[in-house]
Amino acid sequence: MQLTVIKVGGNIIDDDTKLAAFLKSFATLSGAKILVHGGGKIATSIGEKLGIESKYVNGRRITDRETLSLVTMVYGGLINKNIVATLQSLSCNAIGLTGADGNILPAVKRPVKDIDYGFVGDVTNDKVSVTMLSRLLHIGLTPVFAPLTHDTKGNMLNTNADTIAQEVARAMATHMEVQLIYCFEKKGVLADAADDDSVINSITAADFEELKAAGIVSGGMIPKLENAFSAISSGVKKVIIGQAEDLHALYTGDSGTCIL
Amino acid sequence: MQLTVIKVGGNIIDDDTKLAAFLKSFATLSGAKILVHGGGKIATSIGEKLGIESKYVNGRRITDRETLSLVTMVYGGLINKNIVATLQSLSCNAIGLTGADGNILPAVKRPVKDIDYGFVGDVTNDKVSVTMLSRLLHIGLTPVFAPLTHDTKGNMLNTNADTIAQEVARAMATHMEVQLIYCFEKKGVLADAADDDSVINSITAADFEELKAAGIVSGGMIPKLENAFSAISSGVKKVIIGQAEDLHALYTGDSGTCIL
Repeated sequence: MQLTVIKVGGNIIDDDTKLAAFLKSFATLSGAKILVHGGGKIATSIGEKLGIESKYVNGRRITDRETLSLVTMVYGGLINKNIVATLQSLSCNAIGLTGADGNILPAVKRPVKDIDYGFVGDVTNDKVSVTMLSRLLHIGLTPVFAPLTHDTKGNMLNTNADTIAQEVARAMATHMEVQLIYCFEKKGVLADAADDDSVINSITAADFEELKAAGIVSGGMIPKLENAFSAISSGVKKVIIGQAEDLHALYTGDSGTCIL
Repeated sequence: MQLTVIKVGGNIIDDDTKLAAFLKSFATLSGAKILVHGGGKIATSIGEKLGIESKYVNGRRITDRETLSLVTMVYGGLINKNIVATLQSLSCNAIGLTGADGNILPAVKRPVKDIDYGFVGDVTNDKVSVTMLSRLLHIGLTPVFAPLTHDTKGNMLNTNADTIAQEVARAMATHMEVQLIYCFEKKGVLADAADDDSVINSITAADFEELKAAGIVSGGMIPKLENAFSAISSGVKKVIIGQAEDLHALYTGDSGTCIL
C-alpha cells in the first residue's frame, strides 16, 4: 500500500477560496491519503470575542485551560468538520479525527522546564497507533487530523500540525510506502530568497550541508529541512515541500523541493 | 452481534459530575455500543459571548449560518472531543463522529414550508450507512455521535440527537440485534407524575393506548413513546427509557420503562 501524508497550514485554512481549491485537488489524489491541518487565525478572532487572551512567553504561545477549550472547539469542531463536509461533497470519504479518536495519537503533556506551555502535547512516532490508522485506511476512509492529541488521562492537548504530520508519516513508514508533503507559503526551497521561481528541485543530505554553509538555507527553513531528513532516515520514502496551490504537481513530483 | 445505542441529553452534558459518572458507567457496558449526545446549555452561553442570538419562530429554534458554526464548534468539537478523551481514559476506544464523518448520516436540509428552520437536517434510517458504521464497530471502535449531520453538498446540518439515536438504531436493526436506551430526566414512564418512584416497568402497544386514554401518559411523553414503538416496529428489539444515573440498571433491564 502507498500512502501520502499531507500537511496544510493556517494560511490556506484562513482563505475560503484557497481552501476550496486545495480540497478539490486533494480529493482527486489517488491512493491512500491522510490530511493534517493547522489552526488558522479564526481561533484567535473567536478567542478575542470570547475574551480569551492569547498568552505568550518568550514568543511561544501558552495553552491554558481556556485556550484548550477554544482550540478543541475551533480546530476539532469548526475547521475539521467543515473540511470533512467539503471533502464528502467531492466524493472523498473523509473522517475527521483528533489524536484522542481511536487513541491514534496518545501524547505526553510537555514537561515544565523553563516555560510551562500548558496543555501542549508532544507526540512521538513510536506511540502512533499504526494498527488503528491502517484499519481506517483499509475500510476506505481518508483521515483528516486536527492539530490536537490527548494525554490518555482525559485531557485533550494542543499539538503542532507539522509534528503530527511528521510523526504519522514516520510511524506509517514501518508498514507501507509513505510520501510526506508539507504545504507552505513558498513554491519550495529557494536558491534566491528574492526570487520565488528559484526553487531547488531536490536536496540530498550532502546538498543540505552545502546550502547551510553557503547561507542559502537559513532561519526557519533549517528546522523544516532537518525534520524532513529525520523523516527520511526513519523510512519515509520522499518528503516534498511546496505550495498548497500546486498540490497536484507536488504529488506527481512536478513542483516543489523533494528531499531524498 | 448485539448492539446498544444510547442517547444522553443536555441535562447530563451540562453537569460535569453527572457526565463523568455517566461516562464511567457507559465505558463498562459490554458488547458493541454507540453513544449519541445532545447539545447542552454551553452552546447558548458561548453563543451569547460571541453575540450570536438564539432565534426562535413559534417556539422552534432556527439554525442560521452563525448558529450552525456555533453548534459545529461546540457540539462537534468541545463536547464531542472531551467525551472521547474521557472515554479513552476509561479504556473505551471511542471515536467522535458527526454524520459527515465517513458519510454515515447524510441528511436532507429541512424544506421551507411555513417556517424556515435554516441549517437543520432530517435524517432517515434508510440513508444511514450501516456498512460504514458496522466496519467501525468491527475494528473495535465505539462511535460517539454529536447531533450534527451534513447535506452531502458541503454543509454541516444541525440535527436532533433523539432522531439520530432512533434512526441509527432502526438502520442497524436490519443487521444485528439492537437495543435503544433513551436517557432523560425521569426514572421512566410514571404511573403518577407526582411520584418519581411510580415507574411503569414495561409498556406494550395495547398498554400505550390504554395509558393515553386514561390520561396517564400525556404531553411530551406521547411523541417519545410513539418514536419508541416506531423503532420497535422497524425491528429494534427493545427500547428502554430512564435516567442517565441508572445507565447500568437500564442496560440490564433492572430500571426504567421497557417498550416491547
